Amino acid sequence: MPQAIASRLAGNGPGRPPESSWAGLDALLHPRAVAVVGASDNPDRIGGVPLALMRERGFAGRLIPVNPKYSTVQGLSAFPSLVAAGGEIDVAIVAVPAAALESALDDAIAAHVKTLVIFSSGLAESGELGRNLQEKLALRAHAAGIRVLGPNCLGMMSFQNKVYATFSPAPRAGENRTGDIAIVSQSGAFGAFAFSLARARELGMSYWITTGNEADIEFADCVQWLAQDGKTRVILGYMEGCRDTSRLERALQAAREAGKRVVITKVGRTAAGAAAAAAHTGADTGDDAAYDALFRRHGVWRASTVEELFTVGYAASVCPLPASARTGLLTVSGGVGILMADEASSAGLDLDEMPQRAQQALLKEVPYAGPRNPVDITGQALTTPGLLERTLANMLGTQDGQAGYDMLLFFPAAALLGAAIARKVVDELIAAHARHPDRPFVVTGLMQPAYRQAFREAGVAVIDDPSAAVRALAALAFFAQSARTPAV
Amino acid sequence: MPQAIASRLAGNGPGRPPESSWAGLDALLHPRAVAVVGASDNPDRIGGVPLALMRERGFAGRLIPVNPKYSTVQGLSAFPSLVAAGGEIDVAIVAVPAAALESALDDAIAAHVKTLVIFSSGLAESGELGRNLQEKLALRAHAAGIRVLGPNCLGMMSFQNKVYATFSPAPRAGENRTGDIAIVSQSGAFGAFAFSLARARELGMSYWITTGNEADIEFADCVQWLAQDGKTRVILGYMEGCRDTSRLERALQAAREAGKRVVITKVGRTAAGAAAAAAHTGADTGDDAAYDALFRRHGVWRASTVEELFTVGYAASVCPLPASARTGLLTVSGGVGILMADEASSAGLDLDEMPQRAQQALLKEVPYAGPRNPVDITGQALTTPGLLERTLANMLGTQDGQAGYDMLLFFPAAALLGAAIARKVVDELIAAHARHPDRPFVVTGLMQPAYRQAFREAGVAVIDDPSAAVRALAALAFFAQSARTPAV
Repeated sequence: MPQAIASRLAGNGPGRPPESSWAGLDALLHPRAVAVVGASDNPDRIGGVPLALMRERGFAGRLIPVNPKYSTVQGLSAFPSLVAAGGEIDVAIVAVPAAALESALDDAIAAHVKTLVIFSSGLAESGELGRNLQEKLALRAHAAGIRVLGPNCLGMMSFQNKVYATFSPAPRAGENRTGDIAIVSQSGAFGAFAFSLARARELGMSYWITTGNEADIEFADCVQWLAQDGKTRVILGYMEGCRDTSRLERALQAAREAGKRVVITKVGRTAAGAAAAAAHTGADTGDDAAYDALFRRHGVWRASTVEELFTVGYAASVCPLPASARTGLLTVSGGVGILMADEASSAGLDLDEMPQRAQQALLKEVPYAGPRNPVDITGQALTTPGLLERTLANMLGTQDGQAGYDMLLFFPAAALLGAAIARKVVDELIAAHARHPDRPFVVTGLMQPAYRQAFREAGVAVIDDPSAAVRALAALAFFAQSARTPAV
Repeated sequence: MPQAIASRLAGNGPGRPPESSWAGLDALLHPRAVAVVGASDNPDRIGGVPLALMRERGFAGRLIPVNPKYSTVQGLSAFPSLVAAGGEIDVAIVAVPAAALESALDDAIAAHVKTLVIFSSGLAESGELGRNLQEKLALRAHAAGIRVLGPNCLGMMSFQNKVYATFSPAPRAGENRTGDIAIVSQSGAFGAFAFSLARARELGMSYWITTGNEADIEFADCVQWLAQDGKTRVILGYMEGCRDTSRLERALQAAREAGKRVVITKVGRTAAGAAAAAAHTGADTGDDAAYDALFRRHGVWRASTVEELFTVGYAASVCPLPASARTGLLTVSGGVGILMADEASSAGLDLDEMPQRAQQALLKEVPYAGPRNPVDITGQALTTPGLLERTLANMLGTQDGQAGYDMLLFFPAAALLGAAIARKVVDELIAAHARHPDRPFVVTGLMQPAYRQAFREAGVAVIDDPSAAVRALAALAFFAQSARTPAV
């Protein structure tokens, strides 16, 4: 992220209350009229992709191609300018070369456009000249009350409204699920990758925003807007740096108070990474320990890998938050039980032993079971009628002699690759979850796609790797703990 | 792993040279005649699965069902006993209840069987009585020169020979690739899971061995045998504990000297895990730091998760070992470049900067590229003809002004989800690898299945998660370093 001037424009500036840094984002994220400046007939070109996507997916608002060279673009009436289009314009996507930006801005100001999404590159990221141009444009837009996403960004998508203000080809590869996960990325390339990964993992998304050079709208502003958005429950963030930490802190606090679950990958945690970041954008990734502390204070789970970002985000979307970190590990493999216990212990989960009465009951049925916690019911899970059901009751029940764990993680090894007999295991686990819908249930391991689907529909999370599953539960316990404890 | 008596039987015992602990494994892993004691007509039963698998997959040796109740089993002539079958028997699979083991052993001794694979449970893992029975059986088998795998194990598979001496249903779900990765697991349930995971990831396997109670053959013996096996290049191990560390050390040393790449998940690394292990099997998982040191000394990569075990194993199978840890990170996303730099730095890789001349050349073409290392060629990778090729030449070439990195990691973000344009990127990377076949090439990120296949065929590794990819390269550098440095 290049140096920019947003900190002079927004946030704490005189005469501009803090909320103004994000309040204007309604028009961006729920636009009724979207224009494309530099609209193209070619659906593969930068000025053609957004039109093609919004037409194909059925954006219900007004779609306005702007291009003085054509009277129609992609079958829609085109206008020579934003002013000529008339009417209220919430978002004008700007897909013109940097040299044409000033006149595009003149037009936008004259047309009283609310928000610009500027794809154009060749600005602050390209050196002194571009930086000056960007600064000038941002000051003028600000003076005219126009919010700016970008420049040098991949744009944004608002899935429920079918707004595709992006030139990324990623959404063209197929539709994604709509849901409660928002993705905010400072990097466009990472954003495109994240979108594709979310789709591959069938995550339901609410919004996808890339902030690029952040001439005006910053990562923090997006988080703060999402904090008050009713459709979003989980915010996945990708950060390289932050110019205004107090703005970020305010946003994270708002997200926390609104009960959002925030997972952020913040790069530059090592000297080599920080050097790479400086080389990349001239940005200072900042004091990494300070970010750690800030995130911890506001209940943000910091993910050190993309894998973790998405696994924790998935679990946070699917699962309720637990009443405590008391976790029951159920396994048919003693060995993987130990592996999960190792990981759970490192991650700070509580592995309280099963009550003696429950242990005795299990050992009576399966003498070589592991009755404590992990609870290893061995391959008998599949062949002893009712064993799984009784064990689940003893692990989850809150009567005397039962463990009442607040989270359950089940590793069935390869058992759920089987057919008839495995279906009973799936059904019993789903039934147990239905009796305790307030507790996170996670199944880890391989399974038939049909079982995966059944778990999905029942609100049971499926996470392939046992260690990743444990970490996801630790993140849920962390979110719950943060929600109960006021920030210091 | 329960207490057993192997340490009294093998290894350093008087009159038994160390190599005898594994030399007899030829008969187990390359049998010409396999009997099944307790053979069943039902292909789903414990005594039916191995016969069904070996018939279906085409085991070329002699297959001998033993069951006094039938004259044929699964269409094969059955015999009332091993003795009655006559001829040399390399492996007798024993699928009878524990109570029938003694007479099965009598029969095996009389028939001069070389190896027993004992599926039966209810032995050392079930308490004092079973422990005594197991000890008695092991002593008698040893006296008769019979090697024993198990009891309470899932058996073994030798894929090139189509030997399926297992009752795990996992192999019945479909055939796996044959290749150079051997899996050795003390846990049967983990073994079944690992087999399924390896198949799901399309890893080529040579052998799969589960050691169970280890009355005789131990994890270490299997590793030592695999050390001298020409078909095996990578050994993936899953360990809970080890009774005889010197035997393990000898095996790891042999594997190291033979140039094998060994990756082991050893559970019980935390107090909670060790407690779980003690509850599971009464086994002492030992001093974890001592295992760390032992593994490091013998060039074993210790994987703390199943995910890492398989990712490193995959890379070790596909890639050559690098001449050094000098790694070039190539990206189209500056952000993920930083993320990979963070991970590479934590993992001890060398991220030498590109030579000035190469940096200048790149910046001349793409002014906002990141020219150092990570090398960020931005989205221009797709649109500037020859840019990727020239950059690869400068990263890999060893002429003056070129970087000559010994490993290459490429993150194309979502670009390889595209069609026509992406194919050129794939081809260029494969061409560069063909010019430098002695260097590990890894591509990370999402891609079309056809590109994944093309990379596979060209010997370029594909690892979905960027951080996991970096760790895999670190493991390759570790293997290479260990191979160059004599053990201390």
